[in-house]
Parts: sequence; C-alpha cells; structure tokens
Amino acid sequence: MISRREFLGGMTALAWQRQSAISNQSAIRNPQSAMTPPRVSASALRERIERLSTFGRPSGGTFADGVGRTAYSDADVEGRRYVMGLMRSAGLQPRIDPAGNIFARRDGASPQLAPILFGSHIDSVPNGGNFDGDLGSLSALGVLEALGAAGVRTRHPLEMVVWAHEESFAFGRGTACSRIVAGDVKPTDMDAVWNGMRRGDAIRRIGGDPDRILEARRPRGSHHCYIELHIEQGGTLERAAIPVGVVQGIVAIDRYDAVITGVANHAGTTPIADRHDAMLAAAHLTVAVRDAATRRPGRQVATVGQIDVTPNSPNVIPGRVVMSVELRDLSAQTITAMMDDIRTRAREIERTTQTTITFTPMAQNPPAAAAAEVQSAIERASASLDLRTTRLPSGAGHDAQMMAQLGPMGMIFVPSVGGISHSPKELTTWQDCANGADVLLRAVLEMDAVG
Amino acid sequence: MISRREFLGGMTALAWQRQSAISNQSAIRNPQSAMTPPRVSASALRERIERLSTFGRPSGGTFADGVGRTAYSDADVEGRRYVMGLMRSAGLQPRIDPAGNIFARRDGASPQLAPILFGSHIDSVPNGGNFDGDLGSLSALGVLEALGAAGVRTRHPLEMVVWAHEESFAFGRGTACSRIVAGDVKPTDMDAVWNGMRRGDAIRRIGGDPDRILEARRPRGSHHCYIELHIEQGGTLERAAIPVGVVQGIVAIDRYDAVITGVANHAGTTPIADRHDAMLAAAHLTVAVRDAATRRPGRQVATVGQIDVTPNSPNVIPGRVVMSVELRDLSAQTITAMMDDIRTRAREIERTTQTTITFTPMAQNPPAAAAAEVQSAIERASASLDLRTTRLPSGAGHDAQMMAQLGPMGMIFVPSVGGISHSPKELTTWQDCANGADVLLRAVLEMDAVG
Repeated sequence: MISRREFLGGMTALAWQRQSAISNQSAIRNPQSAMTPPRVSASALRERIERLSTFGRPSGGTFADGVGRTAYSDADVEGRRYVMGLMRSAGLQPRIDPAGNIFARRDGASPQLAPILFGSHIDSVPNGGNFDGDLGSLSALGVLEALGAAGVRTRHPLEMVVWAHEESFAFGRGTACSRIVAGDVKPTDMDAVWNGMRRGDAIRRIGGDPDRILEARRPRGSHHCYIELHIEQGGTLERAAIPVGVVQGIVAIDRYDAVITGVANHAGTTPIADRHDAMLAAAHLTVAVRDAATRRPGRQVATVGQIDVTPNSPNVIPGRVVMSVELRDLSAQTITAMMDDIRTRAREIERTTQTTITFTPMAQNPPAAAAAEVQSAIERASASLDLRTTRLPSGAGHDAQMMAQLGPMGMIFVPSVGGISHSPKELTTWQDCANGADVLLRAVLEMDAVG
Repeated sequence: MISRREFLGGMTALAWQRQSAISNQSAIRNPQSAMTPPRVSASALRERIERLSTFGRPSGGTFADGVGRTAYSDADVEGRRYVMGLMRSAGLQPRIDPAGNIFARRDGASPQLAPILFGSHIDSVPNGGNFDGDLGSLSALGVLEALGAAGVRTRHPLEMVVWAHEESFAFGRGTACSRIVAGDVKPTDMDAVWNGMRRGDAIRRIGGDPDRILEARRPRGSHHCYIELHIEQGGTLERAAIPVGVVQGIVAIDRYDAVITGVANHAGTTPIADRHDAMLAAAHLTVAVRDAATRRPGRQVATVGQIDVTPNSPNVIPGRVVMSVELRDLSAQTITAMMDDIRTRAREIERTTQTTITFTPMAQNPPAAAAAEVQSAIERASASLDLRTTRLPSGAGHDAQMMAQLGPMGMIFVPSVGGISHSPKELTTWQDCANGADVLLRAVLEMDAVG
C-alpha cells in the first residue's frame, strides 16, 4: 500500500531521474536540477550513535569508554531491539531473517526491479569503539527516513540491513551472517559450540531461526547493488585530509600458522653453535614476513600478530614456536608472491638456525572488488556535495565482501581519527559522519538512476 | 668415639698421605703406592639412583619417564626420607639444618681442621630427569661408605650434604637453601608465599626450622673445600668423548626483561609505514641478542626464552611485547659488553620500528670461580683412574656457586647423553656415573692431603 505522500514523492523523484537521464549527467551535480536530494539528519544520527553506544558500555563509563557489544551478548540483543524500535518509529517494518539479520524495505516505483541494499552491522569487538558498523547502520536508517520525509520515490525498492555477527569474535569467525545470506552455510554449521553456546541457539537468541537457516540464502542478482558506509579504520583519509574514501575492493586475506620446531634445551649449558633455537628462527621469520610486504611497491601488508612459545621460560631455549602469518592485498597474485618470498626465506632460516618450519593454512579469503559503477556513483554523490574523494582498498573485511558475491558492491569510507579502530579511542568527527550519510543517500539515488 | 676399625683405617690413610707428601706427588697416581683408594660401589649407586627416581615418578611410568620431585612436594619429602634412611644404614647420623639441608659428618684425624664438604641436591624441576643432583648426592654417600668400609681415615673431617631446594621452581628461585648457608637470608624471607604456601612452612615441611633460619648460616672458612659431582647438562664432554669435566667456574647470569612499546592497531587497515609494531621490534632484538653472543670469541651465551605479546591476535599489530634477555659467561665484563651491544642495537631498533624499548634488570648472579687447587685435585684424581679430562665452564647454576663464597670450590662434570637435561630424556651412562663417583672419592683424598 502506497500512501499519498509516497506516491507524490515518488513522482517527484521519477521526474528528477528522468531529467538526469536526459541530461546524461547526474542531476544532483547539476545546480539547475529541479530538485536537490534531502540531507540525512545529522543531529538524529549523532543522538542515535550516542544512545546505541550505551548498550554494552563499560559499567560507569561514558561515550569515551567505547563499547563491548559482541554478537549474541545481552548488549547485542538490547542494541538490536533499540534499532528495530527506531525503524518502526520511522514507519518501517523490520524483519529478522533466519540468520538473524535485520532487513526493512521501502517499495520503489518499479516492483520488478531488484532492491538497492545498504547498511552495516551493530555488533562490536570486545572493548571496541562507537562507530564501527553503527555509523553505517544508523545512516542507512537515516537515508530511508530522509527520502521518506522528502517524499522521494525511487525506481528500485530500497532495503536497509543490519547484519548480525560481523566481528571476528563469537565462534571464531566474522561476517558470519552475511556469509549465510551469500550461501556459505550448511545446517550442521548450527551445531558449532563456542563459549558453551550452540551456534543455533545463539542465532535463535537474536530472533533468527536456525531450523530454517538455508532460507536465509539469497540468489545472485537479488539486489541491484549493495552499498555500505563505514569508518576507514586506517589513517589514510585523515592524513590526506580527504573526507570520503571510495573503496576499490576488499583485500584478500591469507592466514597461516608457521610452526617452527627446534630443540628445547638449557639456556646455560647449550653452546650457541649447538642450539636449535625456535625463537631465533621465529625472529628471522618475522623480519622476513615484513620484508615480503615492503620489498615490492603497493599497499599490501603482512603481519605477525600472534606467537606462542614452548616452554616460554627465560632459562630454556625455545623448542617450538607457532606464529601467525597474515597477508592482505587486493591482488591474490601479490599475496601468492609474498608467501613465495616467505617460504624461500624460511628455507634459509631452517638451515641457519637448525630448525624446521612448516606453514599450515588457517584461512583464505579471496579479494572482493567493488563494482566500477558503484565507485563512480559514490564519486558523483561526493562531488555533488563538494566533498573530495580518493580511491583506496579496504584492508579490513566487511559484510560487503559477502554481498559482492551476489551483485555489484561499493563502500564509502569516512576518516578515522588517528587511524584507530577496534578500540574505545575509535573516533570519527560528527561532520564526517554526516558527510558519509549524505554521500550514502546520494549514492543510492545515483545507483537508482542506473540499470 | 672412634671405632677400632676407623682408627686403623685412619692410620693407614695417614701413612698413605704422608708418603704422598714425601714423594711430592699424589700417591694415588703412583703405582708403587702402598695403598690404592677404594672404589665407590657402582651397583649400589645405580640401584639407589633407580630407587630414588620412583619418588616423584609419573603415575604408571618407568625410569625412562623421569621424575617430578619439586622442592617441598610430597615426593621431595619422601625422597629425602629415603636418602636419610640410606645414610643411617651406612652408619651416618643425618642432621637437618634450619634451612632444610641434610648434613652428615665423618670425623677426621685432626678435629681442628675444617671439613671437606661434598654433595648435591635431590629436588628436580617439574618433568625432570633422574641424574640432575641425584648422582652427586648419592655418590657423596657412596664415598663415605667406601672410605668407611676400607677403613680409610682422613685428616680432615668429611661432610656430605644434600641441599634442599636447588632448582628454580618453588618461590621462583634456585640454589635457595645453600644460599641461606652462604648468608643471603633475612627472617622476613620466610614470609614469601608461592602457590599458597608460606616459605617458612615449606621449609618446616622438610624438617627445617624457619624460626632459627639465621643459624643455618655458616662463616667463611667453615669448610676446607666444597666439591660437587654433577652431570654436565650440556653436550661438550659427550661430543669430545671425554669422561670427566673439570669445572673452571660457574657463569654469571644477568637476566633482563625487555619491554617493547608500540601501538596495537588493525592488521588490515594500518599501512606498513604507519606501524609501531612491537613484534617486529622484538624480532630484531632477538637477533641482536644472538649477535651479541656470537660476534666475540668465547663461550658466552645469550638467550631469548620467554616472550609475551599483547594482544597476541593474528589480525592485530602487537602493541606491547615483554621478552626475556638472559646473558651468561664466566666473565662479568663479557656480560656487560654483550649488554652494551644489545642496548646500542635497541636504540637503532626503536628508530626503525617506531617503538620504545626499556630493559628491566630481573636477576644478577655474579660468576663463581672454581679454586685452582680443587681443579688440580680433580685432574690428578681423574688421571689416577686413567680418565681424560677437559676444563670447561658450568653454564648452569649450582649450589657450588653459593659455597664458593665460603671457601675453595670445585665441580666434577660427567657426560650428559645428547646434552639433554631438565627432561625425562636426561641420561648419563652407568659407567660415567661410576667414574664420577670414583673421581669424587679421589678428589676428596687429594684435597685431604692439601692444607
């Protein structure tokens, strides 16, 4: 059922889009446009981000103390309830899919067209920040509200989403529920146990239905495009003083465990020449991992973040070390080349340290390219707002990665102060938040005019 | 009261020693000697080592499974009871000093002379071996038995000792009770708590008297010399196929915690150039620690055995690393020079990795030189048994280190198969055990003839 206001608004928007098509350039860049798209309410966005941060806030803390709203926690359940309440107040009808994701749709003028999907997540890492996910989720709501209030009728249906369980914490994995929507799920996945909790029960706890989990899958082409606004989580935009980042794609991530086997022995009685020191080998390998990233041009990164030493005692030469090797880049070829370098160096290190080194693959995520048309749409949207942009890769994983499997995907980044994320210190200025929400709104309209 | 047999034996020994003095060379090297010193019973020694290993043996295990007889444990209490029983059966009267050390004395012909002290310990590390300490303790008993059975009377009183709490485990320290005898003790030390146990109560548990702990101290010159037979715990003797090592001294040990502070950040979103990677700095520092040992000639060693990384997650650049730096050498100057090298390299590493590195001293043990006359006595004793010797430092700490503060000290090393120690795989052949005990006996007699 379409209200009178929606109908009129729809007509206006269609008229505007028609003009856009005729002039063969975006109407929103055209000062002579018959209509200027509405703005997302910056004050409501700020108020809601601040309010959402109270669900999972450390006891006695303030906004500056960040949030611990891990997936399936009480705080997550409460935060989701809060957001669904906001959606209902905006006249939307939130629906929880069997995987626990929250969707809400606003009809378009052409019901046969696939919806434009946009949103983010609201779960956090433990001891996390107030912007990661929350900004994109609440901005998506703000976009639907603003378009509704302005009576803008789009051709495509618009669908906002709040993904469940995005962060890599619960059940040891991330982008878990968008992954289900993308089709990567078996009924037996629901039997996984983490922290004494069955995954099916966890999903039921947030309103999902693990018995119908396969019904959460969506086919390829089920959306016209997917757009996600997110904080950068790195320092590139802030350093360049550019308010909007246009994501070129989400990097591939290969993760290995390097297992180094030496011989544990007495640190006092074992001459240097007789040692098979797994820690020394780990040190050389850590340097080799760094070198693999820096010896070639590009933005690839390589990290040793975790190391476990046995027996880990000051007076015993370590006999065994397991260390993580994580490689990220937009190009899977670059990752392969880095790993080849590391393996070559490992052979030398084995020889010089009298140890053995093996690599166990722990995770492999292919890269997800952002669609050229969505990148262009974000650039046009930004330009219409006089906001400079730069293209950059996303070094972090996002639900957008999963949605890229079903259709064109794009991401809008806004600056992170100091490049800090996954920390209570995570911060994006309210102006940058507002910019991001407005770019999202206009990018949605840009994409609505296409295809 | 001296038995008739002891008296006759004493006379014989004195006659033998007098001849030794006259010929100005060791009688035991002289095939024309009127008397050949007795041998320690190799079969009794083996039987006792095997039996002692049952106290603290893993449940259901065999000799090959080693022993866990940590200081103050039930197994330690039982093992000590077993050894004191053996001592009583040998006609000795074991006495426990206030620190928990077990002593037994056999009178010499000249009561005004200070005793020759010899022995070792019987506590072990968790999951330790059957020879570390046990060999020296049970050989000391074997020496007193053999000399008693042969009726050998020495000039100096002979005193065997089984030190309590030698291994660095309980209360986080080693050579703990010989340290008290050497005078390094305050009554308040007894208030330390480890594993829910007060140190005074622990010492009371093994028959000591913490209320009289200061009475355990012995003055300088309270022994003529101290000799300890011990397994090498390294591979030098086995590799050189030399059955007896003459210890030149016990190395100094300096231990530091290197605290590396960087900035924890997202492993995907933080470009390489922006990182303050504490793990990378730790890797470079680990290599610098090794280089400090290898860049100069000598037997000094340097070890990074322990590393603790925060937050220690594959997808987070480590923000903080604490790693141990342990330096050992006979020369305190060499240790200082190594540490100077490491500090210089640390300054470079701070700059290249954008981190800060501080060093916190955790322990400093000065070197303990073995007395030249005791080293010579051990060499003469070995030569008389046609056993080749080599001089070498002890890279491990021993109670002998503490006794060096009270008078001349020497140590006899026998080969460790594969250089393995502090492990169930710790092994010394029964022949090498028997050799060691016989060298100990003759070294005692050699030292009896001196001074």
